[in-house]
Amino acid sequence: MLELEEKLKEDAVCLPGGIIVVGSFLNHQVDPELAKAIGAAFAKLFESELPTKILTVETSGIVPAFATALAMNIPLVFARKQKPITMVHPPYVAQARSHTKGSDVEFFVAAEYLTKEDRVLIIDDFLATAVTVVALCDVVKQSGAKLVGIGAVIEKCYEDGRSKLGDQNVRIETLAKVAKLEDGKLVFEH
Amino acid sequence: MLELEEKLKEDAVCLPGGIIVVGSFLNHQVDPELAKAIGAAFAKLFESELPTKILTVETSGIVPAFATALAMNIPLVFARKQKPITMVHPPYVAQARSHTKGSDVEFFVAAEYLTKEDRVLIIDDFLATAVTVVALCDVVKQSGAKLVGIGAVIEKCYEDGRSKLGDQNVRIETLAKVAKLEDGKLVFEH
Repeated sequence: MLELEEKLKEDAVCLPGGIIVVGSFLNHQVDPELAKAIGAAFAKLFESELPTKILTVETSGIVPAFATALAMNIPLVFARKQKPITMVHPPYVAQARSHTKGSDVEFFVAAEYLTKEDRVLIIDDFLATAVTVVALCDVVKQSGAKLVGIGAVIEKCYEDGRSKLGDQNVRIETLAKVAKLEDGKLVFEH
Repeated sequence: MLELEEKLKEDAVCLPGGIIVVGSFLNHQVDPELAKAIGAAFAKLFESELPTKILTVETSGIVPAFATALAMNIPLVFARKQKPITMVHPPYVAQARSHTKGSDVEFFVAAEYLTKEDRVLIIDDFLATAVTVVALCDVVKQSGAKLVGIGAVIEKCYEDGRSKLGDQNVRIETLAKVAKLEDGKLVFEH
């Protein structure tokens, strides 16, 4: 997605350890036009898979996932990282190891919002180590729903996320593929 | 907003303690059409205030705030409850007491995304005790920006949030005003 690559070149900040900071337009401040274009791009890529629900996890996944839900006019479900006091029935629970926090986090999804009739498209901001996406795949499996696709806005091709998702046997689409960071700049893969 | 009141009557669950659960369409599963209509309603109510930024806090505020940002085509900034490792400059910080967690939470906003040139519209899901909104007002004050409005999707008129915001001297708009919960049902105020 050219518009996204240009924005990344212009505004993303590269930090040591392969970190890409996109707070100026994606996960702290949000550029509405770009977010809308991201949603439209995912909708076009996955429309043939006929998803009935978009699934993501709070917080950073919500904007691209909601933009996709708007473009496809299907509900979004976002997993919570804490069980709300208002979640009265037993939810689906999956574990993910947070590399920023260095500990396990749990994802909770109310069982009533994902059922075996659903066709689920997972959307997240980054595909890096895929820890988050693997946990979301686990939630989909628990629900009996069919996973029909995985989309991420930015892929860090220098991490092993894509290969870890190989056994999901599902289409994976990312909108900007970063091959490496070199001299504080992003190098894209096409 | 009639469409919202109907959805609340149909799908919201009332729990003891004045709790209104809207996980089926607003803050866990999200109905895209309704969210879009909420954004359009806030855009119409506040367009004359000429906001340049929408401000909210993760997580539940993001969907209505982003829908408003899309409708007004202005950036959204969402405060983080943990300081990201990628936030390199000193951010604005405000405290809020969480009544669900019984402890203080901190809101972080990177200083570069709110400046004194900005006209800020705060959007959140609920206006109840206004603890969250007061903390967001504090962030706006620290930035030197002008607060031009406060919008919340659902107002619990049986809590004191609106009166607590009186000294902000700013327009407050809510889309559904719940006067009380009676026999497990919502009673609206018009």
